[in-house]
Amino acid sequence: MAKNAFYAQSGGVTAVINASACGVIEAARQHPDKIANVYAGRNGIIGALTEDLIDTNKESAEAIAALRHTPSGGFGSCRYKLKSLEANKREYERLIEIFKAHDIGYFFYNGGGDSADTCYKVSQLSETMGYPVQAIHVPKTVDNDLPITDNCPGFGSVAKYIAVSTLEASFDVRSMAKTSTKIFVIEVMGRHAGWIAAAGGLVEDHNIPVVILFPEVEFNQDKFIALVKEKVEKFDFCTIVVSEGAHWPNGKFLAEQGTRDAFGHAQLGGAAPVVANMVKDALGYKFHWAVADYLQRAARHLASKTDVEQAYAMGKAAVEFAIAGDNSIMPTIDRTSNKPYAWAVGKAPLSEVANVEKMMPKEFITEDGFGITQACKDYLLPLIQGEDYPPYENGMPKYVQLDNVAVEKKLEKFEL
Amino acid sequence: MAKNAFYAQSGGVTAVINASACGVIEAARQHPDKIANVYAGRNGIIGALTEDLIDTNKESAEAIAALRHTPSGGFGSCRYKLKSLEANKREYERLIEIFKAHDIGYFFYNGGGDSADTCYKVSQLSETMGYPVQAIHVPKTVDNDLPITDNCPGFGSVAKYIAVSTLEASFDVRSMAKTSTKIFVIEVMGRHAGWIAAAGGLVEDHNIPVVILFPEVEFNQDKFIALVKEKVEKFDFCTIVVSEGAHWPNGKFLAEQGTRDAFGHAQLGGAAPVVANMVKDALGYKFHWAVADYLQRAARHLASKTDVEQAYAMGKAAVEFAIAGDNSIMPTIDRTSNKPYAWAVGKAPLSEVANVEKMMPKEFITEDGFGITQACKDYLLPLIQGEDYPPYENGMPKYVQLDNVAVEKKLEKFEL
Repeated sequence: MAKNAFYAQSGGVTAVINASACGVIEAARQHPDKIANVYAGRNGIIGALTEDLIDTNKESAEAIAALRHTPSGGFGSCRYKLKSLEANKREYERLIEIFKAHDIGYFFYNGGGDSADTCYKVSQLSETMGYPVQAIHVPKTVDNDLPITDNCPGFGSVAKYIAVSTLEASFDVRSMAKTSTKIFVIEVMGRHAGWIAAAGGLVEDHNIPVVILFPEVEFNQDKFIALVKEKVEKFDFCTIVVSEGAHWPNGKFLAEQGTRDAFGHAQLGGAAPVVANMVKDALGYKFHWAVADYLQRAARHLASKTDVEQAYAMGKAAVEFAIAGDNSIMPTIDRTSNKPYAWAVGKAPLSEVANVEKMMPKEFITEDGFGITQACKDYLLPLIQGEDYPPYENGMPKYVQLDNVAVEKKLEKFEL
Repeated sequence: MAKNAFYAQSGGVTAVINASACGVIEAARQHPDKIANVYAGRNGIIGALTEDLIDTNKESAEAIAALRHTPSGGFGSCRYKLKSLEANKREYERLIEIFKAHDIGYFFYNGGGDSADTCYKVSQLSETMGYPVQAIHVPKTVDNDLPITDNCPGFGSVAKYIAVSTLEASFDVRSMAKTSTKIFVIEVMGRHAGWIAAAGGLVEDHNIPVVILFPEVEFNQDKFIALVKEKVEKFDFCTIVVSEGAHWPNGKFLAEQGTRDAFGHAQLGGAAPVVANMVKDALGYKFHWAVADYLQRAARHLASKTDVEQAYAMGKAAVEFAIAGDNSIMPTIDRTSNKPYAWAVGKAPLSEVANVEKMMPKEFITEDGFGITQACKDYLLPLIQGEDYPPYENGMPKYVQLDNVAVEKKLEKFEL
């Protein structure tokens, strides 16, 4: 007999997380004998706890299809991590109440490392709390730091955006270098892993001198300044890509705003002006700097076609695995060939995914710590292949805003 | 008998200034009986003074055509303003020497307000120094602040980029607002004129609450904070677009780096974090901020088709006006109809263009000073119509890098 499915978006959103949502819902609609409806959590798992569910059956096929080309989280996301069963049994009991009340047998959770941990805990409810639910994690993170999967949906598009934007801005600074700006600094996301910063390094093959500051490499100011000087003397300009996670040997970030997010992570921003002024003080070069911030992860207008296809495929595969009886797994992207690039859908047990962070391999960073190797380029380039432009209307992208009709509540209110 | 032409790019470059270069060179190649060769100044007017000329006849038709989809200044630009004839006669004498030595009869100068002034001075050389040269200014500036012309090539693309990026980032913050970020601040260019900031206001018609800080409006902190509070209470999030030129009633910029460029303008940057922290301190909302900087004016990947066509048309028209005998003029974009949008090429005397800055009309800014009116939207929307994607190769835009072969020098060295 058909059960309902619960789907939620978790953590920082991306240009293609809605493509995964589209994959989940379209696949579920192909199997009405197994999945009667997909209830989406309004604002992620909070929507489950507060019984704020969205009835996706109320959305037209066209609206759901348009999710594929719409950035951000169409149902709302949240930063909210379930504690362990011991620490907060009440939340798990509530989830089971909700699942029972709304006949939910499938739990699809679309997020990164923290979310994989939540999904893993839910996947154990059958054993720990006696409620049968199949929990499948749909991978998503611009940080590209989930283990086992070759790459994460969301990363390919942000990589393409950073590579293209860095190339364009580098062309600009090169034009200005004779009498004006010689240094362009772009700050990119990536708290602990330098994957996004690495994508900026792809401009090197377009005759652009580039220096990268990775979170994986302790910042060495003297070596950095010497390298920038060398590049400017040779090329007359230099581009610098700095990860928000770049830090001093003592662990202090190059720039820290002093505030922390709900997971206790330091909220970063502002490494670019720090680095730009450092170069100015040491070498006197005029600079410009940019902080891409949300622009990079929301840039659906420049999404990687490969990324969009993979994001969709992960959503679809999650449903198909669930229907086939899987629990406590995450679909993965398995690279089966590099040249030509080919990939297949695989799967990984959540016990091996939850709370594991994949760093850049050492062999992807050049020996001096400021660049990427050919192996890294060979890894990155397939992920930014292809363009997948959204439709435009009156000069602007035609992104969908769903109706997000609420499912009728059946339970008492729950205080978070 | 055919003369040679001199062409140079001046001041800050744009996503489409090379499209104007393409228009100049392709049009010149259509008239070999009038224009034998286009010599481009390497790094702008400095290339003329130092006799560093680029032989564009050495570039293939394909390479010149590719300029149309390549951002930045393909020949290099500079920030260098000729003084008055009285203050620095030596530079004008040098220009005439160069023109004579290389048989240059046409001077095409592609820039903004400061450059129009230089072009105007050159256009007077026939009268003031007895050397016959036709000087035509090709309009270019992302700031959209040249007079007479309805708009400036370069602006439409940056407007499209800011409108789309602000929309995408606003979708992102809306997704996160329940438990995390409620405020997104994007800082945009525009030192004295708020045209680019105004483009961010176009997201309002996509259900996005937006507050704009214009350089034309003295910053009022109390009113600003009250408006942000009102929007967040209604929508749960708010987007703020701040112009780099936004300033306090005493004229002090919200953020000033303390350095100045070659024209003596203050080099700005960093208004976004100032504004974001101000909101955090007053209302406690978690924020994210971005500084688009060069990304916005280099973003050829998201150029407005209208803008590309107009940039090309201005270059082409400059050559055609010159061949028809014009001097001391600038081709203009004349809006002949708004709905449907239609435009024609006009011309304006340089005496009325040089050193005149066009501000936003009062009726384009809402009464409270924080938004744009319907009249402003009606003005802006036609300028961002259409997409004009560059070709891609291996995941990256295929931008051209010219050979830029130097013309043989004939004169003594000249010290700037």
